[in-house]
Amino acid sequence: MKGYAIGIDFGTNSCRSLLIDLDDGRELGSKVFPYPSGEAGILLDSKDPNVARQNPQDYIDGLEDTITGAIAQAKATDANFNVEKVVGIGVDTTGSTVIPVDASGTPLALDSRFADNLNAFVWLWKDHTAHAEAAAITEKAAALRPEYLAKCGGIYSSEWWWSKIWRLQKTDPEVFRAAHSFVEHCDYIPALLTGSTDPATLKRGVCSAGHKAMYNADWGGLPDKEFLAELDPALADLRDRLYDHAVPANQLAGGLSDHWASKLGLKPGTAVAVGAFDAHMGAVGAGIKEGTLVKILGTSTCDCMVVPNSTDLADIPGLCGIVDGSVLPDHFGLEAGQSAVGDIFLWFVNHLVPDSYGKTNDEKFAAMEAKLSAQKPGETGLLALDWNNGNRTILVDVRLGGMILGQTLHTEAHEIYRALIEATAFGALTIIKRIEEYGVPVHEVINTGGLAVKNATLMQIYADILGRPLKVSASEQTCAMGAALFGAASSGRVSLADAQASCCRVRDRVYEPIPENQKVYEKLYALYRTLHDAFGTASWSGSLDHVMKEVITIRQEARSAS
Amino acid sequence: MKGYAIGIDFGTNSCRSLLIDLDDGRELGSKVFPYPSGEAGILLDSKDPNVARQNPQDYIDGLEDTITGAIAQAKATDANFNVEKVVGIGVDTTGSTVIPVDASGTPLALDSRFADNLNAFVWLWKDHTAHAEAAAITEKAAALRPEYLAKCGGIYSSEWWWSKIWRLQKTDPEVFRAAHSFVEHCDYIPALLTGSTDPATLKRGVCSAGHKAMYNADWGGLPDKEFLAELDPALADLRDRLYDHAVPANQLAGGLSDHWASKLGLKPGTAVAVGAFDAHMGAVGAGIKEGTLVKILGTSTCDCMVVPNSTDLADIPGLCGIVDGSVLPDHFGLEAGQSAVGDIFLWFVNHLVPDSYGKTNDEKFAAMEAKLSAQKPGETGLLALDWNNGNRTILVDVRLGGMILGQTLHTEAHEIYRALIEATAFGALTIIKRIEEYGVPVHEVINTGGLAVKNATLMQIYADILGRPLKVSASEQTCAMGAALFGAASSGRVSLADAQASCCRVRDRVYEPIPENQKVYEKLYALYRTLHDAFGTASWSGSLDHVMKEVITIRQEARSAS
Repeated sequence: MKGYAIGIDFGTNSCRSLLIDLDDGRELGSKVFPYPSGEAGILLDSKDPNVARQNPQDYIDGLEDTITGAIAQAKATDANFNVEKVVGIGVDTTGSTVIPVDASGTPLALDSRFADNLNAFVWLWKDHTAHAEAAAITEKAAALRPEYLAKCGGIYSSEWWWSKIWRLQKTDPEVFRAAHSFVEHCDYIPALLTGSTDPATLKRGVCSAGHKAMYNADWGGLPDKEFLAELDPALADLRDRLYDHAVPANQLAGGLSDHWASKLGLKPGTAVAVGAFDAHMGAVGAGIKEGTLVKILGTSTCDCMVVPNSTDLADIPGLCGIVDGSVLPDHFGLEAGQSAVGDIFLWFVNHLVPDSYGKTNDEKFAAMEAKLSAQKPGETGLLALDWNNGNRTILVDVRLGGMILGQTLHTEAHEIYRALIEATAFGALTIIKRIEEYGVPVHEVINTGGLAVKNATLMQIYADILGRPLKVSASEQTCAMGAALFGAASSGRVSLADAQASCCRVRDRVYEPIPENQKVYEKLYALYRTLHDAFGTASWSGSLDHVMKEVITIRQEARSAS
Repeated sequence: MKGYAIGIDFGTNSCRSLLIDLDDGRELGSKVFPYPSGEAGILLDSKDPNVARQNPQDYIDGLEDTITGAIAQAKATDANFNVEKVVGIGVDTTGSTVIPVDASGTPLALDSRFADNLNAFVWLWKDHTAHAEAAAITEKAAALRPEYLAKCGGIYSSEWWWSKIWRLQKTDPEVFRAAHSFVEHCDYIPALLTGSTDPATLKRGVCSAGHKAMYNADWGGLPDKEFLAELDPALADLRDRLYDHAVPANQLAGGLSDHWASKLGLKPGTAVAVGAFDAHMGAVGAGIKEGTLVKILGTSTCDCMVVPNSTDLADIPGLCGIVDGSVLPDHFGLEAGQSAVGDIFLWFVNHLVPDSYGKTNDEKFAAMEAKLSAQKPGETGLLALDWNNGNRTILVDVRLGGMILGQTLHTEAHEIYRALIEATAFGALTIIKRIEEYGVPVHEVINTGGLAVKNATLMQIYADILGRPLKVSASEQTCAMGAALFGAASSGRVSLADAQASCCRVRDRVYEPIPENQKVYEKLYALYRTLHDAFGTASWSGSLDHVMKEVITIRQEARSAS
């Protein structure tokens, strides 16, 4: 008997703890804690839609609430469950989600002096205020350190570590000066649990460091001081107060502190693994291996692949990162993603779907999906771009907006919903094409995340557009599952591979592409790609007068066939 | 004392009669009849959004209901009113709205054999099924009779007479064979009222003939048989069963028949004027003269100007038509227009505005307009194309669709509503620029129609975008007012110019452009025009990656200023 493990998954709007049996992956207990602050956990600024911050107190409250809740449920569910046999705890979070901290590692937002200053709060992954800084970092790195950019897709993003820190330094020097250091959310939680929050010594994960902070052992860790000084001398100074080494998440962050052990009802010293991002741990929880693309379909999307680190892998333009050990030990982890997927549907249902579809969002989605399943591809006559929150892969550009094209005087909300689903699938296809163009074949696609589990209409549209069978992970909580597997591995009692083999499964239902739908979507994808390149790249030049005409022709063909 | 006149205005969703005092334009009685058939009077086909038909019985029922209603109201309103002093009746309708009729001039739709066949019904102006026929007519005319095209903007439209008739002939030969002839809606109503419905002899108006049927006295009336035979021999045969002469609407169609005089409670023989289109009569009712652009802002928009027919006027590409006598006698009437304006807002409020704005459409519009008046130009970060129903002027192309660009995850319905208003104003500006480029200066803009009267938010946005003071006609019913003036003129008791001088006025409130708004809109118009030309013309070629970036920059400037 291998024992139990707990995974804690910090999402964009809530966090969740999951308690699993390591023998078979059975989920014995789970609890969710919606962040109470702001709008669904996000602190907004009405003057700037780029602002997205969080309250670290929500994380601390959620940690205790969800772990004790999951343990209580496990006890209630399974008479044989023994809390003494919890061998490890793993943590995943969104990222790059950056916390300014004082010298003791305490978030500045918990200091009453900064209670009213959003800049002292957590800079959530989807905060896009730092686009100018991202552009400047890209420019400097292109000129001085091209190797930095080559590992993060050629463009440094406003969603990432250095952009956010520099933005803070430029726009709010007082908060920046008060910040002794900065910690990724995924590193802060293990530090908190192990009582080792000193920024100088707390364990930093290679997943966040490598994907977001331009950390690479090949060049000695974080960017060198000379380069940082080119951005701003304050950043060069800061480097001394950050870290030199980052490690994979199957390593131990430390033992659970007495304080937290007593709060949670767990043994002091229980193994706490180094943290990593939700997508990467989700990929592990979904059963990632060489040749398998794991897509986490949530508010945004993260697409992960692994390639043995013995491979001579080319840099892939537009990919968020290629980092040794960021997903599985001894493999390069490849990360791509879409800045908004579920978030686009939520925006749409919140702001533009009339009550004739239902009273609640769930009712509205269900009513729209029922109408969509009776409709054929192309019937809407619509084409959309999935850029409401910018484009992460392959354009790495936040200064983009959404687009809907082709609406008539009869276009209905569910038709636009379909066009938005299709647009996100076209975005997903663009990512797969880019990865394969650079010599990494995709043999299998496993999907996980809320949309994969709940939205069969979306999954069929995705299968038709991606042109491949789509599998769905058996667990509904692959991120927390992956975190639990890392927690177990960090204890040294089981290897990560063995834990995956015991716990990761896919569902019986596989979404197979329908050939006649694929044909229509191939035509629409060509038009999507034209709009994508026209509005998203400086290199495109051409004509567009065929676009609306072809969408209308496709609509007519689809309607006359039905 | 000049007496009274009645104008009857047949719109897209309803008809209205207006009874005026010719001494001062006082409106003594008015009644509206919403067409009971179909969806708001329009018969649709779920398989083809291009289909828009009407039931002629709605016209007949509306005629009696509204005239008797207006007379009753006049009697109730003014004790001095004397129905014996009604000197004339005028009629305006939408167009080209084409009615297939039998040899007696009775609409085929009233024949029970065709009760279930939409093709036998009235082909409403906004029916767009005949786009292929329109393209073929344009192609043939360009090769064989370029003079035909020169008078209708260079492109023959699917909304017009020959496209619709040919479409019927090609797709439903049985109905086409049953149709002895075809009559414009605006010619059918005077024929009905005067009891002279014989298609061979009923009076045809030059407004519809010249703007929609390629009629011109210079080439002997309708297109010649040789040309029509090139389209289809059946159309050449049909020409013999149409007409040779068309006349302006200040001429007499005939005297009111005994049958209708008794139905309506009017004197037999009362003058009934030749019919014309709503926009043209509306322009007269609004007080059109040389240098004045009259904009009728309704479900769609019609823009009219007049130029003395002694002028050597160049043909203007994209204008719907230049026809001698179609608006005022002895003047060329210039017609331009937008295929959907109010219809776009109605589509939006019906399908995409949630109930949080209000329960009824009126409440929703009011709530959105209240939010818009607190917002600055550019703040939405949105840019739209007003092509949900195609583009009439200056592209003359129905195979286009709407577009909305720049939406974020925070974009709200009222912001999209603003972008849609702006898009229609940009479309309006494009028309003015085209007219002025061809040597017809616009010295004054008088607006009329429901939107001009009811929507102050829209009018201010239009003033800012058009960059001119915008006046609003005093009458809310300028089309019916114009029709009444023509009815009076056709009686010979008063000239049209005298009737205009007595009856046409503008309101005190003039919408003046706000210079700082104009500056923002000049930038946005440049981007609109780029999208317009990119998606709407074959000649455009270029880059578009600046568009989303500039819209975002404008948004940032607007928000940081507020």
